[in-house]
Amino acid sequence: MATVAIRIGVIGCGFYAQNHLHAWKELAADGAVLAAVCDVDPGKAEAAGRTFGVPFYTDAAALLATERLDGVDIVTRHDTHRALCELAIARGVAIIVQKPLAPNWDDCVAIVEAAAKAGVWLAVHENFRFQTPMRHVRRVIDSGAIGTPNWARVTFRTGFDVYLTQPYFYDEERLAIADVGIHVLDLARFFLGEVERISCETQRRNPKVRAEDTATMLLRHRSGAVSVVECTYEARRDPDPFPETLVEIEGDKGSIIVRPGSIMRVTSNGTTTEEDIGSPLRSWTSNPWHVAQEGAFMACRHFLDCLQRGVPAETSGKDNLKTYALVDAAYRAAAEHRAIIPAQWKENTGALSMERWAQ
Amino acid sequence: MATVAIRIGVIGCGFYAQNHLHAWKELAADGAVLAAVCDVDPGKAEAAGRTFGVPFYTDAAALLATERLDGVDIVTRHDTHRALCELAIARGVAIIVQKPLAPNWDDCVAIVEAAAKAGVWLAVHENFRFQTPMRHVRRVIDSGAIGTPNWARVTFRTGFDVYLTQPYFYDEERLAIADVGIHVLDLARFFLGEVERISCETQRRNPKVRAEDTATMLLRHRSGAVSVVECTYEARRDPDPFPETLVEIEGDKGSIIVRPGSIMRVTSNGTTTEEDIGSPLRSWTSNPWHVAQEGAFMACRHFLDCLQRGVPAETSGKDNLKTYALVDAAYRAAAEHRAIIPAQWKENTGALSMERWAQ
Repeated sequence: MATVAIRIGVIGCGFYAQNHLHAWKELAADGAVLAAVCDVDPGKAEAAGRTFGVPFYTDAAALLATERLDGVDIVTRHDTHRALCELAIARGVAIIVQKPLAPNWDDCVAIVEAAAKAGVWLAVHENFRFQTPMRHVRRVIDSGAIGTPNWARVTFRTGFDVYLTQPYFYDEERLAIADVGIHVLDLARFFLGEVERISCETQRRNPKVRAEDTATMLLRHRSGAVSVVECTYEARRDPDPFPETLVEIEGDKGSIIVRPGSIMRVTSNGTTTEEDIGSPLRSWTSNPWHVAQEGAFMACRHFLDCLQRGVPAETSGKDNLKTYALVDAAYRAAAEHRAIIPAQWKENTGALSMERWAQ
Repeated sequence: MATVAIRIGVIGCGFYAQNHLHAWKELAADGAVLAAVCDVDPGKAEAAGRTFGVPFYTDAAALLATERLDGVDIVTRHDTHRALCELAIARGVAIIVQKPLAPNWDDCVAIVEAAAKAGVWLAVHENFRFQTPMRHVRRVIDSGAIGTPNWARVTFRTGFDVYLTQPYFYDEERLAIADVGIHVLDLARFFLGEVERISCETQRRNPKVRAEDTATMLLRHRSGAVSVVECTYEARRDPDPFPETLVEIEGDKGSIIVRPGSIMRVTSNGTTTEEDIGSPLRSWTSNPWHVAQEGAFMACRHFLDCLQRGVPAETSGKDNLKTYALVDAAYRAAAEHRAIIPAQWKENTGALSMERWAQ
């Protein structure tokens, strides 16, 4: 079968975008064509263009007007996402957009609705669920080895200095949940399904930061399952598992435990096996970041495949609204000291669910 | 210094009371005198009396009228505690009473108030915090090695068949939190101090039981610390740590992790050490129950020491009301889907705090 070529323009060439650029280049064998890059910083745009041998732009409108693209991969800060998405939608170009989708729920919904109305394919680059270890966990659940999963812990606890490469973290109004909590909340959905309600306690343990650096969340899933979802940048653990997500899932027939070092221990009907489920190193990835880098690659590979087959991504804009709603609900739960029902976007009406503010 | 002899009468000679009887016997060297035993079941009373070589009774009033006792150790089901405590209070005899103190908050308060009014020494046999591993953890906290503790997980997750020796568990109206959750909640207080509010999700994962067999609790402590407190009888883990409590505590300078097998890993200012903190085996204890049995011994030793010195026990009736209030608050939080402020007993007025039902 002939490989369908998909021409991608990458918008945003900063720290994290390097992983996307490498991913698209490596995916050339599968039909991805890195067609052009763009960054408002001319130095970053030129550096990426020269490194990857493609035209570079400092203006996204010019990129879209000049290049013949099948899709754009938007890897900029979230406050630029809505405007950039609208540009791409106007051109009918498929969109992959970095998480979080937008700075607030209304902008998220506006992006998803605009894309839906225009029939434009939209995916959110939510990469944790594409990490090789997390796919392994999901495959074990799907195999039925642990029976029905009814309790889980999904945890990202590190003391790694995340402020070094992202000094703007000090001033964020929403920190741990918006940055990494969104990933672990998405994993909770991935493993246990949709969420009925969420409770949350946030902490600011590092006095130098403005917002919360620690969040401890208690989720009730619609299935009846319960999960604890945690994130902190203030753990003092040894080994520090950064940037690994650790997982414990209990079912009626067994359990799955993922320990630091990506060792998965599966107990199924009384028999226990252990397996190394670590992310493989790629030519452009390096330890310990490779866990996250390889997740970005696997996400891009999924998006490419979906675009080629003309099907929605697993983390489509519509799907990702459910994860985003959990972020908003977590902050509200922490502020109001009660369990919050996450907002729902009603696709058929294009309107917010009344449940959003209901209790 | 001469050892002060303390004459103890044990009321209740069932499954768990055997540990108390052995404990008092072993504590003879420290001044404990097991003076007599009592059980409404003549067979159990006689068996205990013969085994430990002491007079046996089937009526607590007769025991108290006949024997010259300094204290009673009440190891019966909680619905008998209030009446038995009132008998002892009338005689001015010190009281140790098995947890939970009583079936409901009002009875708990009534017992504590009656003892306080009569000037009778009252302690609750809350033994988890006296287990050797938990004392080790507390000593590390007190040493300052991890700085200020600001986050913790206290967890009791087992698949051990607790229904085998306690078949009445199937029909309890309150199960996991009332039986073992109360212990882990007490540990959360022991490690991180008093609780500001508590959220909770309960589950009935075993369809054969009437009440909850799993509870996942999220606590905000007055210090600002947050803890996750968990208990379940439906875990499917290997190794199954029964009856060990596992602990993770993070402070600003380090962390304490207690893994299955009572291995404590302490990280302090970047340096990590590991230590076996397991409970020692006694002549009458056996693996794996020795963790709980030795905890009962250590609790009795503490009560004996306090009685000899004429000071309140660490788990006095007054103190234990704070743990009991957490149990009630957890059930209410689960039912109402919100964080609950635990009830407070106001010692100076003898009245319930208005906060009890406030939000």
